[in-house]
Amino acid sequence: MLPPSFSPDAITILAPGTVANVVCGFDVLGFALSQPYDTMTMRLTAQRGIIIIINRDDYNLPTEPARNVAGAALLALLKAVPEEVGFEVEIAKGIKPGSGIGSSAASAAGAVVGANHLLGHRFSPAELVEFATYGEEVASGVRHADNIAPAIYGGVTLIRSTTPLDIIPIPAPLLYVTVVHPQIEVKTSDAREILKKEVLLRDAITQWGNVGGLIAGLMKGDYDLIGRSLEDVIIEPVRSILIPCFAAVKAQSLAAGALGGGISGSGPSIFMLSRDEATAHRVAAAMRAIYTGAGIDFHTYVSTINPDGVRILPAAATVPAVAF
Amino acid sequence: MLPPSFSPDAITILAPGTVANVVCGFDVLGFALSQPYDTMTMRLTAQRGIIIIINRDDYNLPTEPARNVAGAALLALLKAVPEEVGFEVEIAKGIKPGSGIGSSAASAAGAVVGANHLLGHRFSPAELVEFATYGEEVASGVRHADNIAPAIYGGVTLIRSTTPLDIIPIPAPLLYVTVVHPQIEVKTSDAREILKKEVLLRDAITQWGNVGGLIAGLMKGDYDLIGRSLEDVIIEPVRSILIPCFAAVKAQSLAAGALGGGISGSGPSIFMLSRDEATAHRVAAAMRAIYTGAGIDFHTYVSTINPDGVRILPAAATVPAVAF
Repeated sequence: MLPPSFSPDAITILAPGTVANVVCGFDVLGFALSQPYDTMTMRLTAQRGIIIIINRDDYNLPTEPARNVAGAALLALLKAVPEEVGFEVEIAKGIKPGSGIGSSAASAAGAVVGANHLLGHRFSPAELVEFATYGEEVASGVRHADNIAPAIYGGVTLIRSTTPLDIIPIPAPLLYVTVVHPQIEVKTSDAREILKKEVLLRDAITQWGNVGGLIAGLMKGDYDLIGRSLEDVIIEPVRSILIPCFAAVKAQSLAAGALGGGISGSGPSIFMLSRDEATAHRVAAAMRAIYTGAGIDFHTYVSTINPDGVRILPAAATVPAVAF
Repeated sequence: MLPPSFSPDAITILAPGTVANVVCGFDVLGFALSQPYDTMTMRLTAQRGIIIIINRDDYNLPTEPARNVAGAALLALLKAVPEEVGFEVEIAKGIKPGSGIGSSAASAAGAVVGANHLLGHRFSPAELVEFATYGEEVASGVRHADNIAPAIYGGVTLIRSTTPLDIIPIPAPLLYVTVVHPQIEVKTSDAREILKKEVLLRDAITQWGNVGGLIAGLMKGDYDLIGRSLEDVIIEPVRSILIPCFAAVKAQSLAAGALGGGISGSGPSIFMLSRDEATAHRVAAAMRAIYTGAGIDFHTYVSTINPDGVRILPAAATVPAVAF
């Protein structure tokens, strides 16, 4: 039996993709996407500490809770829950694993936000981020919050510090995002190893000038300043060689009117920001032309920066075609 | 004869000190002080291109225009002025040269803002900064705008890029500044040479997280976030060894309630930010106790961040005791 104040009714969770390592903001800046997203259903059970994972997709992800991203996040959360409860979670991933747009973060963030809803909203967003990072640890070996934070807070987030975790929501104007996911594999471990441990102080100064400009541009709603600040002199020159056609995608996106953009996460997806929807679609067309010409399969997504992060719907709700 | 639309009347100029290299914002962030400041008087003359410099203080600074900070800035400005005019400038420096609070920048910024006033406000602030950097070149060999920008714009400024120059005014809440200037010499050239050319990527990420946090904290008016972000893991650990009692000043200032602070410019002055005036005075008392105990002469200043930068008064005006 569930504790009497808890409902056995299921909820539906929409858990969005996210862009981390936003150009100059490597390891500190991320934002949530409106598309793509995972769809999860979740309910409380009376089996203390027991988590049942059911995958409703073709990715053959582990279902053992300690090895599943959502399961590991929920196991961390349950340590802070005294009641006799467990969870049953069904996951239909709309975000392909390994795409560089926060697939594992979506599952972990969706699970803990859903759990918090079912338990009557007892945890703060910062606590939920902490729980969800245990999911990231299962996926990549590192408890990073780069994608978790924007998935849970929505909008743009700055991780000022990881120890202690200090997440700063950054107000932003309406921005359209075009993402292209070329269907190739970039191992996160390769993307990490390729980086140099030391950088020129001169380049670091350029980078933190751009981080300052990007935060100011977002908070002022100054699109030109956002565009000028979207420059990465440290990571992109090294990592972009792992992504076929990166230089062409960037050049053609800017030519199509994008403000700027770069590698999403550690790739292979590339994102570009635009100030209006028509431009974002022109950018998508430019991206499609490049990868079609190169004979590389791809997906493109056009959306806005998603101000809400993970959303909860009643179980009976039909998941809308455009969910955010 | 002056061109008929120009007045031969003199103006009085108050040119404030400035803090550059604001903790994590090395080379990119600066702000204007309300005290100390230089007092200048300036008038147009009909002698084309001729600049007369008169020093009204005891610092024996050069009076040959090309070797004087204000003179070099005015020579740069006059190249963009077609009319048959020159300037006569009297300078009474209230900011001791070599203090690390923008003494040379005050003279250069005061001169070009004064000239622009006398010429009917024909230049933009960004153009004035460009002219004034020729004064900095005379003082230090480098055309840097770190102190010039806040002296001319007032408030807090971010220099996102130097080539091309991109100055971003950063809105900030009311902040009190305590500055202590221990009367020792730190050569800018020594302060530069001591820095390593390469830094750890890990440290650079910490630094740009803090720059982002500081900009967000200033723009949100979030004093706690400002305080948490006032951390420099790259420059301060190296340069602070050139400043006697630095660690004690910092520790005692924080104990007295300061939000944070660090080396002003390349030193030897140290600044601390506080959210109220009483705290800023307690910080000043703590600083005085330390340098008195160490037998080192010093000056302290308590003021606010000066939102206006260089100010112009009618010539007949009495310079107020607290000018800003």
